[in-house]
Amino acid sequence: MGKFVTLGEIMLRLSPIGYERFVQANKFNVFFAGGEANVAASLANYGLDSHYVTKLPAHEIGQAAINEMRRFGIKTDYIVRGGDRIGVYFCEKGASQRPSKVIYDRANSAIAEAKREDFDWKKVFEGAEWFHFTGITPALSDNCVEITLDALKAAKEAGATISVDLNYRKKLWSTEKAGKVMAELVKHCDVVIANEEDAEKVFGIKAGKTDVTEGKLCDEGYKAVAKELYDRFGLKYVAITLRESYSASDNGWSGMLYDGKNYYKSKKYDVHIVDRVGGGDSFCGGLIYGLSSGMDNQSALEFAAAASCLKHTIEGDFNMMSVDEVMNLMKGDASGRVQR
Amino acid sequence: MGKFVTLGEIMLRLSPIGYERFVQANKFNVFFAGGEANVAASLANYGLDSHYVTKLPAHEIGQAAINEMRRFGIKTDYIVRGGDRIGVYFCEKGASQRPSKVIYDRANSAIAEAKREDFDWKKVFEGAEWFHFTGITPALSDNCVEITLDALKAAKEAGATISVDLNYRKKLWSTEKAGKVMAELVKHCDVVIANEEDAEKVFGIKAGKTDVTEGKLCDEGYKAVAKELYDRFGLKYVAITLRESYSASDNGWSGMLYDGKNYYKSKKYDVHIVDRVGGGDSFCGGLIYGLSSGMDNQSALEFAAAASCLKHTIEGDFNMMSVDEVMNLMKGDASGRVQR
Amino acid sequence: MGKFVTLGEIMLRLSPIGYERFVQANKFNVFFAGGEANVAASLANYGLDSHYVTKLPAHEIGQAAINEMRRFGIKTDYIVRGGDRIGVYFCEKGASQRPSKVIYDRANSAIAEAKREDFDWKKVFEGAEWFHFTGITPALSDNCVEITLDALKAAKEAGATISVDLNYRKKLWSTEKAGKVMAELVKHCDVVIANEEDAEKVFGIKAGKTDVTEGKLCDEGYKAVAKELYDRFGLKYVAITLRESYSASDNGWSGMLYDGKNYYKSKKYDVHIVDRVGGGDSFCGGLIYGLSSGMDNQSALEFAAAASCLKHTIEGDFNMMSVDEVMNLMKGDASGRVQR
Amino acid sequence: MGKFVTLGEIMLRLSPIGYERFVQANKFNVFFAGGEANVAASLANYGLDSHYVTKLPAHEIGQAAINEMRRFGIKTDYIVRGGDRIGVYFCEKGASQRPSKVIYDRANSAIAEAKREDFDWKKVFEGAEWFHFTGITPALSDNCVEITLDALKAAKEAGATISVDLNYRKKLWSTEKAGKVMAELVKHCDVVIANEEDAEKVFGIKAGKTDVTEGKLCDEGYKAVAKELYDRFGLKYVAITLRESYSASDNGWSGMLYDGKNYYKSKKYDVHIVDRVGGGDSFCGGLIYGLSSGMDNQSALEFAAAASCLKHTIEGDFNMMSVDEVMNLMKGDASGRVQR
Amino acid sequence: MGKFVTLGEIMLRLSPIGYERFVQANKFNVFFAGGEANVAASLANYGLDSHYVTKLPAHEIGQAAINEMRRFGIKTDYIVRGGDRIGVYFCEKGASQRPSKVIYDRANSAIAEAKREDFDWKKVFEGAEWFHFTGITPALSDNCVEITLDALKAAKEAGATISVDLNYRKKLWSTEKAGKVMAELVKHCDVVIANEEDAEKVFGIKAGKTDVTEGKLCDEGYKAVAKELYDRFGLKYVAITLRESYSASDNGWSGMLYDGKNYYKSKKYDVHIVDRVGGGDSFCGGLIYGLSSGMDNQSALEFAAAASCLKHTIEGDFNMMSVDEVMNLMKGDASGRVQR
Amino acid sequence: MGKFVTLGEIMLRLSPIGYERFVQANKFNVFFAGGEANVAASLANYGLDSHYVTKLPAHEIGQAAINEMRRFGIKTDYIVRGGDRIGVYFCEKGASQRPSKVIYDRANSAIAEAKREDFDWKKVFEGAEWFHFTGITPALSDNCVEITLDALKAAKEAGATISVDLNYRKKLWSTEKAGKVMAELVKHCDVVIANEEDAEKVFGIKAGKTDVTEGKLCDEGYKAVAKELYDRFGLKYVAITLRESYSASDNGWSGMLYDGKNYYKSKKYDVHIVDRVGGGDSFCGGLIYGLSSGMDNQSALEFAAAASCLKHTIEGDFNMMSVDEVMNLMKGDASGRVQR
Repeated sequence: MGKFVTLGEIMLRLSPIGYERFVQANKFNVFFAGGEANVAASLANYGLDSHYVTKLPAHEIGQAAINEMRRFGIKTDYIVRGGDRIGVYFCEKGASQRPSKVIYDRANSAIAEAKREDFDWKKVFEGAEWFHFTGITPALSDNCVEITLDALKAAKEAGATISVDLNYRKKLWSTEKAGKVMAELVKHCDVVIANEEDAEKVFGIKAGKTDVTEGKLCDEGYKAVAKELYDRFGLKYVAITLRESYSASDNGWSGMLYDGKNYYKSKKYDVHIVDRVGGGDSFCGGLIYGLSSGMDNQSALEFAAAASCLKHTIEGDFNMMSVDEVMNLMKGDASGRVQR
Repeated sequence: MGKFVTLGEIMLRLSPIGYERFVQANKFNVFFAGGEANVAASLANYGLDSHYVTKLPAHEIGQAAINEMRRFGIKTDYIVRGGDRIGVYFCEKGASQRPSKVIYDRANSAIAEAKREDFDWKKVFEGAEWFHFTGITPALSDNCVEITLDALKAAKEAGATISVDLNYRKKLWSTEKAGKVMAELVKHCDVVIANEEDAEKVFGIKAGKTDVTEGKLCDEGYKAVAKELYDRFGLKYVAITLRESYSASDNGWSGMLYDGKNYYKSKKYDVHIVDRVGGGDSFCGGLIYGLSSGMDNQSALEFAAAASCLKHTIEGDFNMMSVDEVMNLMKGDASGRVQR
Repeated sequence: MGKFVTLGEIMLRLSPIGYERFVQANKFNVFFAGGEANVAASLANYGLDSHYVTKLPAHEIGQAAINEMRRFGIKTDYIVRGGDRIGVYFCEKGASQRPSKVIYDRANSAIAEAKREDFDWKKVFEGAEWFHFTGITPALSDNCVEITLDALKAAKEAGATISVDLNYRKKLWSTEKAGKVMAELVKHCDVVIANEEDAEKVFGIKAGKTDVTEGKLCDEGYKAVAKELYDRFGLKYVAITLRESYSASDNGWSGMLYDGKNYYKSKKYDVHIVDRVGGGDSFCGGLIYGLSSGMDNQSALEFAAAASCLKHTIEGDFNMMSVDEVMNLMKGDASGRVQR
Repeated sequence: MGKFVTLGEIMLRLSPIGYERFVQANKFNVFFAGGEANVAASLANYGLDSHYVTKLPAHEIGQAAINEMRRFGIKTDYIVRGGDRIGVYFCEKGASQRPSKVIYDRANSAIAEAKREDFDWKKVFEGAEWFHFTGITPALSDNCVEITLDALKAAKEAGATISVDLNYRKKLWSTEKAGKVMAELVKHCDVVIANEEDAEKVFGIKAGKTDVTEGKLCDEGYKAVAKELYDRFGLKYVAITLRESYSASDNGWSGMLYDGKNYYKSKKYDVHIVDRVGGGDSFCGGLIYGLSSGMDNQSALEFAAAASCLKHTIEGDFNMMSVDEVMNLMKGDASGRVQR
Repeated sequence: MGKFVTLGEIMLRLSPIGYERFVQANKFNVFFAGGEANVAASLANYGLDSHYVTKLPAHEIGQAAINEMRRFGIKTDYIVRGGDRIGVYFCEKGASQRPSKVIYDRANSAIAEAKREDFDWKKVFEGAEWFHFTGITPALSDNCVEITLDALKAAKEAGATISVDLNYRKKLWSTEKAGKVMAELVKHCDVVIANEEDAEKVFGIKAGKTDVTEGKLCDEGYKAVAKELYDRFGLKYVAITLRESYSASDNGWSGMLYDGKNYYKSKKYDVHIVDRVGGGDSFCGGLIYGLSSGMDNQSALEFAAAASCLKHTIEGDFNMMSVDEVMNLMKGDASGRVQR
Repeated sequence: MGKFVTLGEIMLRLSPIGYERFVQANKFNVFFAGGEANVAASLANYGLDSHYVTKLPAHEIGQAAINEMRRFGIKTDYIVRGGDRIGVYFCEKGASQRPSKVIYDRANSAIAEAKREDFDWKKVFEGAEWFHFTGITPALSDNCVEITLDALKAAKEAGATISVDLNYRKKLWSTEKAGKVMAELVKHCDVVIANEEDAEKVFGIKAGKTDVTEGKLCDEGYKAVAKELYDRFGLKYVAITLRESYSASDNGWSGMLYDGKNYYKSKKYDVHIVDRVGGGDSFCGGLIYGLSSGMDNQSALEFAAAASCLKHTIEGDFNMMSVDEVMNLMKGDASGRVQR
């Protein structure tokens, strides 16, 4: 088994207990999370040789982030220590008609201010099988664009499959800049994963008549988006996650996959939400596992959909489901009966 | 902007953690709450100059009540200190078919035993724009009837709009006494707000064939109730909250408004409940904000309904939603998608 | 009122807080529970003279188990102290498509290693009106088979009504052994209670075409099962609990009762789950109360169904609902409106 | 073994977590406690047949009080249910130079408003060996004076030994009234227990030059107090607890006993405090155990002193130390080495 | 009574529960704190008209900071909203030989990046009686130096007494820069407060032979420091806090005051620590109260010392002791006896 | 740097919150701990390549134990999965005169029932520099004696230094058996570490007149013990930890080391205890670090003593102090001043 390398930020996530609002909280749950770290956690969870690459300050909060990754099986040997701060995000859980709320305080984090020379990509990608990153990493800083590009080239050279989750973050960059930078980066990728908004925001590729706030999703539109991405960037796979937000408590969730020939559509799950943050990342993790472990395309997609359905029932961003548990749901047991 | 004055009790609310029953609790969450204080909190939350008037003992638990009000922006300058105790209520959260349970221990509270001379209403209502109270306050004691009447007269004199939430509490007084006293007080009011039972219990005005334990509500019946109240007391507005209790976990929620000419009906929300106590109070708060901020009648009602829908997702009695957040739901986004 | 005696194990139940998974827990909620102790708790709760018989180590954790039983009104005078350990079970709460997970660590518990001479059954059953046990107790050890048999004989002699919940546990014994032992024990019983799987697993009596993981239950099949049990063992009543697992968060729940002449079917409840462990036990407790307190058969069944519906809303295995609360639901108020 | 009967109030004790002040608390630890109930808990803990007599409201908070007593082995069969409320006391833990703070909200409790006819003393004292009460009970109300007198007479008639802890509470009554009432009640007693202030406050018996806020205690003075009490009321024993308050975190603690002939002085313990409330009550419990179990006078006193020393290390008012644990300290092992 | 104005930062303080280290924490206690805000809290606590001036981001965490200040009586009307982030500090509590640890993440906070034109000092100081700031504020940024200077001038013009706590923070600026800037600012001050290191670090004024890590403090040295500061800056008062760190759990604490004529020395307290952060700030708060309320110099100093002694027993940075409570200790009752 | 290998058990440690007793706990803190795992944690903490060898069940609680070790940097690659259960120990924290209490439930754990063929020692010790075990491991079962012997031989062959902590556990085996087995095992060791009781209990080597419950320790006696051990087993080092138990809250702590020529005695620390369990293990960890990193003997001993002094301030068994932090104390800064 080769290395599965992920590059990105990991932040301190601070969340009020239960359904408390920020203004009434007197305790925060402490998680460590980030779009890419969440994928690395999924991969480690499935027993893959998952390595995370980032930069973290040398102080104890940075160490706590590393400890949390180690705890869940992520290898942290390539993490660079230094810089001033770890990014923070505050996350308030919504319920029913009240949306969840995320406040970012991530500017000037160690990874955002990292330098190209901090990383020895040759060593990192020695024996690598897969490289994953998201659109968040290059959005952090111009340095991070170059760092990502360095990583992409080294990954390519090492023969790794490369996947990217477009993950557009409007607070980090404009659609214009995102479009320009991502076009450059996606060129090196084999697999693109996106949700219903990303393709439009980043590349201006619209899904047709879809108003996600009304919870309706249009299949044909998404097929067109997938095809357009596939063709434009010469990819092997395009995957799209489809979320129907009935409310902050209940969502519909499914995915689709396009391999240049066929469109695969997963089972749709109606999930009663415990914590939806990291849902898309767990889809990426599941898809990478599915595709890299020799599943057929439909199975890989179903694995990804089932894995990310289950993520919605887990506190924190990291998906903590084993291959067996995902398989069990994927094979059809959604009854939730007690496992003794 | 003038003062928004509210008069009533504020109690120490003690609630087991999560869904624990009283008999298994070894910790209580500490809230401070009361039908009128909850309205004052809503108003402060919307940025209004919200003043609460009550009497609280001079000890630290009384101080903690004041601190909690200050924390959420309520002005506490007119609160009188003295008396022996703060009222207490124990509140156990229900789920599914198990109802929530409230045990009151409020007799002999400082406000119930307050005297007319404790309050300088002239000063309180200087520059007042609105005065709100509920049927609970006069139910506390005969002194409180007189205190309320004093307040009403001063409010009137100051030119404030006056609203009342009928809020019948059978543990505090009989329907007979309530009817007699409230008839006297409502005479001074401009706006009456009631839920599906209050009008009948207090004034014997029935909504026709409605069995609220079966979760069916009859529109025509409520229109008749509203009209009857409107006509009997020479009001400007009558508002009725309409709760359909599917279970302790899920409710339907909406409101109606009658202005002497038209009946307005709000959107109905199906809410998955975090904490429903204070739901009616948050409707009052929303309606007062809507009517006092120049919204049209339908909008004011929709604001009230959306605000109180959202209250059901908040722990504690105080509604902690901003004008923007309420507006967002009122305008139609009930998808609960994460706000980043 | 005579004694209601229950025999079995009581374990230390350790559960992560809320929806945390085992691997992320850093605190466990501490409960004490067991199929039979849960029934004893229900009976104590309804005001019956409920006595629990087991063996517990003389150390403080054993004492804590006794304290918890005393707290909820169970008489613990006949509990023998000694042995090395109290059984432990770890219970992780599921949500939506993620099932709850139970890990048992109960081998070599004090009760499993108890000896026949530990118990003075004559004294225990003096003045006994009812004796209840489950299929778990004899599954603990060969000693426990004999202990159960001793108890059954003494109960019979004392004129007590005897009920058994088949409760098959595949981790404890094979279907073959269970079938052989239970056939011997059930001979002494008047009432058999089973869920949809037990009759088949223990006695090979199938409910016909039912795939419980798909949430479909077939009435006719269960009638046949009930009749077969009734006839084979010469019983007075057979009751079957019917769970439809829509998900780990929502279940359908009802029961049926057969008295040799008629099949009674209870109302079906759709429950939003707080904690479903102990649901079946609370049905037994409710049925024993109903049958022993002179209710007619349909009412006894409805009491059992309502009681166990409500159990699903309680944290921990013990049902903490009073007769009045159960009656209220049984009579039709499932609205969950706040009780003030 | 005969019954050990205690009469008094049991209150809901609400305490902020750790060293939080009232004004910053958002959770309260829930205990149930009271000077007399604490003694009953000690006695139950030592394996005596400990019965508590009080009146509690029929609601769930009253039930929770009963459950807590049952949990720790107190028999609750003679507790009368009824009345409106359970007394409440708020208790903030001090540290170092900051004193602990207690706010009482106990007026109009069920026991304070109980009537003489609520209690069937003949039945209560059938087979009684000991009766204990404190100066708090008659201070609750005039009814309670009569109730206490009824109990005293019945206890005497049943041949029980009677002990009283003077326990003067200035918030409940004046020294004048206390003196008059207690003189009447103490006449029926065999054993009087007091701390350094009680004898002076209640009976005007001064310990000579002692300024307890300076932490100095004068032996000779206390001997004189003991003798005066002994002689004035014709007692068998007078015991005095001697607390030296170095700070809220550290206290010196010892006791003395006078039997009409000799003065016994216990070892003095320097205790690092976890929770000092209930310290005096645990001395009473220890002394009653010591005297009733046939220890010699010095040993009984040492048992009481060791027991109450250990109480200072227990959260909540109830002392949770076994006879063996107290004996171990009494015999000299104060090293606190881990018991494996 | 005039306004008491304080200028500075307020940060989100995140602390593990109890004595947990950062690397094992999975929850953080949420406090809001800062050297100057802590003083404002003390002043509000003593009933003064305490106003805090800072800049906070417009998001909910900024709002929570404001709510916390309002809760404890600080007026927040002059707080400017805007900027990107609130400063954060992580604080791990030490014990015995293990020191407490503070990690700052405060760069680029809203106040550090505030602009001179954000503040309307004329309005702020209208009717002001006192202005307090610390050496931390000008250390935040060059802008903050100018802002502080603007405030100083306006305060002077308004006739307010001005106090400064030197509070040197080596992570924020060099001793050189501190010395240069502070010399400029202290010129406008009437009262300087410093601990044993500040005068040396900021102005190179040494206390003579004192090695604070060995817990020895030299009176004569500090007198010399006070005199030197007094003379150099033409002050009215110089106060020095004297901490003897026996361990992270136990400290000696006292203060001295110099008025140009006499040296006053306070009582020395040996404190068993609950939370020592904010100890120096509470001394400032106490001194300002003492000096502004007409106490004589010795009394003002004793009030400051007693207040800050008590702060060490409070969780969080804010001192929550009332004037009465401080007076009680100041008058000599350090016994920590329960206040009922 | 070579591998540092430790062999032993790791248990689930369950502890009530704060100072709660077992019988009042309703939550347990979850730790994973064991005499040897604690040493492995110390070594990982100091940056050594620390590997733990044990056997753990394949279920999620076993996984949680592994996760916790990974979290704190212990390599878990050689841990064998299988067997039925993880050992459990319950640990109640004492205070002042109340001792801490440990209840073991470790029989039949996976490691106790492990087989020789479960471990591939050749692979484990490839490149090993140090091997550490304790007297607990062979005490678990006869299999474990052989497993330990296998490990010792392989370690020897690999050229590793071997250390043992005698750690006598009377609940696991008799002094006779311990003596016989340990004599066999210690033959292979280079370093023996013991506390004041172990040498006597295991090898009958007495320290002379020492009564540890009285808190007096005799230097000469311990020198004799060290010499006797050294000579009898042909060791390189003997170290002895010296605990003076003043109370459960305060201990004296120091160590001595004998190298065949000189006796070294460490500084003695008076520690105010947060959690003393694992104190001896952290001494072993510190000593191994000191001796293996080239410190001189006195320094290695001082490092061990300082490290284990600091352990007493950490919650849980694992010592979480860095080399720098230990060095800081070792160099003399015990002032506990805040590190900013």
